[in-house]
Amino acid sequence: MSTNAREESLAYYQRVRNYTQALCEPLETEDFIPQPEPFVSPAKWHLGHTSWFFEQFILRRFSPAYKVYHEDFSFLFNSYYNQMGKRILRVNRGNMSRPAVAQVFDYRGYVDEAMTRLLESDLATAEVLELVTLGINHEQQHQELLITDMKYILGHQPLFPVYRDGYRLVDGTAQHSDWLSFEEGIAEIGYSGKGFSYDNESKRHKVYLSGYAIQNALVSNKEFMEFIEDGGYQNPVLWLDEGWTWVNDQKVQAPLYWHQVDGVWKYYTLSGLETVQPNEPVCHVSHYEAWAYAEWRGLRLPTEFEWEQAAEKINWGDRWEWTDSAYLPYPGFRKPEGAVGEYNGKFMVNQKVLRGASRATSPGHSRKTYRNFFQSKHQWQCTGIRLAKTL
Amino acid sequence: MSTNAREESLAYYQRVRNYTQALCEPLETEDFIPQPEPFVSPAKWHLGHTSWFFEQFILRRFSPAYKVYHEDFSFLFNSYYNQMGKRILRVNRGNMSRPAVAQVFDYRGYVDEAMTRLLESDLATAEVLELVTLGINHEQQHQELLITDMKYILGHQPLFPVYRDGYRLVDGTAQHSDWLSFEEGIAEIGYSGKGFSYDNESKRHKVYLSGYAIQNALVSNKEFMEFIEDGGYQNPVLWLDEGWTWVNDQKVQAPLYWHQVDGVWKYYTLSGLETVQPNEPVCHVSHYEAWAYAEWRGLRLPTEFEWEQAAEKINWGDRWEWTDSAYLPYPGFRKPEGAVGEYNGKFMVNQKVLRGASRATSPGHSRKTYRNFFQSKHQWQCTGIRLAKTL
Amino acid sequence: MSTNAREESLAYYQRVRNYTQALCEPLETEDFIPQPEPFVSPAKWHLGHTSWFFEQFILRRFSPAYKVYHEDFSFLFNSYYNQMGKRILRVNRGNMSRPAVAQVFDYRGYVDEAMTRLLESDLATAEVLELVTLGINHEQQHQELLITDMKYILGHQPLFPVYRDGYRLVDGTAQHSDWLSFEEGIAEIGYSGKGFSYDNESKRHKVYLSGYAIQNALVSNKEFMEFIEDGGYQNPVLWLDEGWTWVNDQKVQAPLYWHQVDGVWKYYTLSGLETVQPNEPVCHVSHYEAWAYAEWRGLRLPTEFEWEQAAEKINWGDRWEWTDSAYLPYPGFRKPEGAVGEYNGKFMVNQKVLRGASRATSPGHSRKTYRNFFQSKHQWQCTGIRLAKTL
Amino acid sequence: MSTNAREESLAYYQRVRNYTQALCEPLETEDFIPQPEPFVSPAKWHLGHTSWFFEQFILRRFSPAYKVYHEDFSFLFNSYYNQMGKRILRVNRGNMSRPAVAQVFDYRGYVDEAMTRLLESDLATAEVLELVTLGINHEQQHQELLITDMKYILGHQPLFPVYRDGYRLVDGTAQHSDWLSFEEGIAEIGYSGKGFSYDNESKRHKVYLSGYAIQNALVSNKEFMEFIEDGGYQNPVLWLDEGWTWVNDQKVQAPLYWHQVDGVWKYYTLSGLETVQPNEPVCHVSHYEAWAYAEWRGLRLPTEFEWEQAAEKINWGDRWEWTDSAYLPYPGFRKPEGAVGEYNGKFMVNQKVLRGASRATSPGHSRKTYRNFFQSKHQWQCTGIRLAKTL
Repeated sequence: MSTNAREESLAYYQRVRNYTQALCEPLETEDFIPQPEPFVSPAKWHLGHTSWFFEQFILRRFSPAYKVYHEDFSFLFNSYYNQMGKRILRVNRGNMSRPAVAQVFDYRGYVDEAMTRLLESDLATAEVLELVTLGINHEQQHQELLITDMKYILGHQPLFPVYRDGYRLVDGTAQHSDWLSFEEGIAEIGYSGKGFSYDNESKRHKVYLSGYAIQNALVSNKEFMEFIEDGGYQNPVLWLDEGWTWVNDQKVQAPLYWHQVDGVWKYYTLSGLETVQPNEPVCHVSHYEAWAYAEWRGLRLPTEFEWEQAAEKINWGDRWEWTDSAYLPYPGFRKPEGAVGEYNGKFMVNQKVLRGASRATSPGHSRKTYRNFFQSKHQWQCTGIRLAKTL
Repeated sequence: MSTNAREESLAYYQRVRNYTQALCEPLETEDFIPQPEPFVSPAKWHLGHTSWFFEQFILRRFSPAYKVYHEDFSFLFNSYYNQMGKRILRVNRGNMSRPAVAQVFDYRGYVDEAMTRLLESDLATAEVLELVTLGINHEQQHQELLITDMKYILGHQPLFPVYRDGYRLVDGTAQHSDWLSFEEGIAEIGYSGKGFSYDNESKRHKVYLSGYAIQNALVSNKEFMEFIEDGGYQNPVLWLDEGWTWVNDQKVQAPLYWHQVDGVWKYYTLSGLETVQPNEPVCHVSHYEAWAYAEWRGLRLPTEFEWEQAAEKINWGDRWEWTDSAYLPYPGFRKPEGAVGEYNGKFMVNQKVLRGASRATSPGHSRKTYRNFFQSKHQWQCTGIRLAKTL
Repeated sequence: MSTNAREESLAYYQRVRNYTQALCEPLETEDFIPQPEPFVSPAKWHLGHTSWFFEQFILRRFSPAYKVYHEDFSFLFNSYYNQMGKRILRVNRGNMSRPAVAQVFDYRGYVDEAMTRLLESDLATAEVLELVTLGINHEQQHQELLITDMKYILGHQPLFPVYRDGYRLVDGTAQHSDWLSFEEGIAEIGYSGKGFSYDNESKRHKVYLSGYAIQNALVSNKEFMEFIEDGGYQNPVLWLDEGWTWVNDQKVQAPLYWHQVDGVWKYYTLSGLETVQPNEPVCHVSHYEAWAYAEWRGLRLPTEFEWEQAAEKINWGDRWEWTDSAYLPYPGFRKPEGAVGEYNGKFMVNQKVLRGASRATSPGHSRKTYRNFFQSKHQWQCTGIRLAKTL
Repeated sequence: MSTNAREESLAYYQRVRNYTQALCEPLETEDFIPQPEPFVSPAKWHLGHTSWFFEQFILRRFSPAYKVYHEDFSFLFNSYYNQMGKRILRVNRGNMSRPAVAQVFDYRGYVDEAMTRLLESDLATAEVLELVTLGINHEQQHQELLITDMKYILGHQPLFPVYRDGYRLVDGTAQHSDWLSFEEGIAEIGYSGKGFSYDNESKRHKVYLSGYAIQNALVSNKEFMEFIEDGGYQNPVLWLDEGWTWVNDQKVQAPLYWHQVDGVWKYYTLSGLETVQPNEPVCHVSHYEAWAYAEWRGLRLPTEFEWEQAAEKINWGDRWEWTDSAYLPYPGFRKPEGAVGEYNGKFMVNQKVLRGASRATSPGHSRKTYRNFFQSKHQWQCTGIRLAKTL
């Protein structure tokens, strides 16, 4: 590759890697360890896993002189790549006090040094640079998870520890909500540019959409409180059958992190426990809650195709927005060969697509064709609600 | 309504109600009771529930002289209608030895008599006839469940009891499999006729389809055995992530009812344990297995829209066929008002659409726009596999 | 053996076998099937299992001409004898509709005929007669379980079916409660007679007892209601740690079968739902509840040794009485060789001894050295409370 | 109290408190956090809880000037004292990264300072000194748990971290095993001295013992390996019914921490993974395993009374030794008033008594009347096997 391309890649690599470490600065050593739920990963694990990704998919394959940092780290920091050998059970990530945090940072440094040498050498072919870009995007995904996982870890402790004073994931100012209408017809969906995109955004294809309208603004805390006050969480008619089971089994009565203290709604933020701000877009709701809220309003969630078509005209980027689309392959999707093929395709069942991005999304890691996906029950990402209706 | 319409409705009602009882003839009294898994219902429950449907939604509302058979039966035989009051937990259906089977048949007779009187009277308005049609279709759905539930109940007993000699759900003759190709373009999807259809088949709308090919024939037992022999159940790369967890947690190694006896594959049929017939379409596979099989072949499952477009040109009706489409509302879907609105809409999450019909489907209860749906894990319906590919 | 001994054995055998069938007379065919909880067995299973016991341990071994009724019945009706080959999982007993009830009665008849022939022949040696006695006692134990299991099965149905009008397990008249005192010293514990007793009652041995007093009468419903009204179920200080977990996990608020209807305590009896009789001894309490009640009174449960010493002087036979003794072997206990050795010894951990007998105990199946045992959590036997204190 | 008594108490207090901190020296900050199983507590929790004990039961009550360190610590570090208010769920102890380890040490220092001031003042009455003694003994119990919990935490990590080179809990040299016989008769059981003892060791009372023999030495690793090689873990006849379920559910095949590597038995020790030493007493076996081993030998475990009588004549102190006695109150036992009453009494059900002490037991924290107790399934304490037989 051209020296220029390598230099750009290296600079990008370093910027993103440094950002990960910057996110960890406010943490105590102890904070890197716990895993209160299987879907949450400890900060230490994110640090190790993102480094392992570069070691496993790039350094081991393209850097002949590279000496693996520690043979057991593959086992410790592999996430779900079945083709990459054994891995510790996901539920056990929080039980590993060793390697110590300092050693994981040492591992990062070791990988960074090797990556730097590689990216400064002729071995950095186009294939390598492409994998580096994938690794960087992978790390950016984990940056977002790192923040939301840390919020979960800190936010479930009795002392409600502050991550960083003034740090907020849920900022947002009041927006006037308008309906934007779209006429029936064919839309082009999927990524078409030249930059990086995930395999699940391809290939670009036509979708026929009935006429619909979509709201310019997200649902606010104030609006969601009205749903609560109207008994929304107690009315089975508003809920998907699965959602109703979830509400009752989990005893859900409000978005995640909300606590009613002396009749006032408070929520945990990364700067501590605060009074819920009515004009902010509601955050930390499950797809079940988003669906029920829409039902209560006599409206519905948009499909991911409606969202993508409307993206140019709406404000987005504050919340990941639940769509009612199932996470499925686009026509002609084929997962890549090899372990990288396990990245997206095997999760294409029983998950919902989210569109947009959130305040926890890393800079530069969003675009209108980006397809995020989670199971309907999850609340711990910065998820919000946008409403739509069929015309 | 015209006398003619009433007479037709009554005749249809009686034919379907009698068919339910005919299905029960081979059963011992004891067979009506067990519920080995929550997703299976006892025969007694199906008998009571289908009668309750007519009592609850028609007789109580439109027949002023009607005297409810037994006040507690609402509680016992309500399935999932949250608006209709309390109901016993689904998992407890198999613990109810009372009312005795004879009493449930008495209840059926009582309801039938009242329905006959109603349908012979002026009270049988168009609204009533419409609800009768819904009740009949509802009963036909339960007829199919009754057969497949009884297969599950009998097929999980050490004595492998025979339901009826010669009765087979899995008949099928060898078919030569060809590819049928369809060009990219707009298809019309959803019900458009004048007869009965469910709310989830409406409204008819346009869908844009990329070019694809679909197989004329279903995957056969012989073909599926090759997947087994090739280690398909042991290869994580072929499976959806959820499917791989399911295979390992449930220790699945073959379709439901298959037993390897001295190296030969046998399966339980309603006429007893028999040797697997290689040319029959494979039956009793989960969506996970169907998906993995397609992946192993380098192909995929069709979407429900592809299936519906191709339906005129393919042989169908032997198996319910898994599609890779998620069960979601068509554009403009609104669930009906009242408890009948709980029929379909609230299940539109995390289920897969099946298209076609099976050997257990009641006569007259199939059409190309019919959307059946189950969770990906279920094997106990007569489910099969049809393959497709993007062109 | 002497003809006389054989005749007596046969007469006893027939009397007990007939009694089992008499207990089943009020049941509908359907009632023989359900198993709502793993610790409850269906009536059909009790019928088959007690017959299997005679077939397995006597007819197969001592009756050369005996032809096994059905090879699969060993598998179906073995309970927990690991040495006797495979057995169906206990939790699946309620899923077996076949063999039908009539066939199980046929099996009983077949075994009875063969047993009669054996007991009328020279093959009926002393060893055989001893095993017959064991089999009879075994059947008597299952008679009691059959009654209490049927109460559980019928008593957990919304229709509260009547087993037999006027049939009561919980009769009892008011007794004036007095303290009986016993001085410190050595007591002889264990069976010493010549009749039948279980291995766990032997060998007779000395136990040193501190001085204690024990109540002549059992705790009544009225007394227990005072505990409820005083918040006994809400006060952690009164409970064993395990018991407190049990109360909260199971949401226990009263003895089993008690229902508060419009402020009045009702209970399910085998003759239907009735108002709780205040003067009857309380019934269907767990060991945890018995212990907590005693704690609330500032007293304690007796040990099984205190109970046995006092047995001559107290009224007993209405309830199985919880002691605070753990079920453990007497000094010198050795389990018998062979599968019969699995009868008692292997359960000698984490169970509590109950002493006495109940209204559901078969005639002739009680004695003061009899050691019944259940886990602390169980309420479904006719269990009661007697109080003691250390002097 | 006399100045002397206060000075002694303070010196003892300081010695024990310092010992706790010495035990923590080899740990990394990260090691203080994880809780891999509910029965294991993080080191941080032990540090906080033992300090809380002094704060809660002594400083708050007897030191008027004492200012509570942090109001929320009661909630965080209460273990099971229901009377002391809310407490975090036991399973969540490992999710608390805050307070940070340094703050917990600060809390310890704060409490120590206040305790020192109190013990140097006139407020240190006899009642206070008695509670201090209880607190010290409580802390010693937690010292042992801290070691065995850390072994569990470190020993379940893929890197098998070393706690301290050369540190061993399982030392032991070969002993020749002899039978010591005791004649039938009355023994005096329970504490009778003037020093500290727990309420469960009182009151001293007479027990009648049949003649028995007990082995001088513990069962060795070599002997236990013979049991493994003889298929002991695969033979249901050797096991208690509950034990057999445990073996199969947990897939137990050897004592805890044993790993078969290339045909050689290794075990994790606090100084790393090592080859099992044949002559050491076997360690980390459950009561179920101890019982099965004894059964395999045709012998049995001693009762706690036999053990106590024999204690003068046997070597003990290497392992906590499983007895077959259930943990039950001695005659006349009454739990103390107040929260301290929750110390022992409420656990007196479904646990087994262990006698002796182990290499992890703190200096001075053992005596022949000491009654330790655990559920039958636990292996993570330094538990061993001594055999007995009835004469």
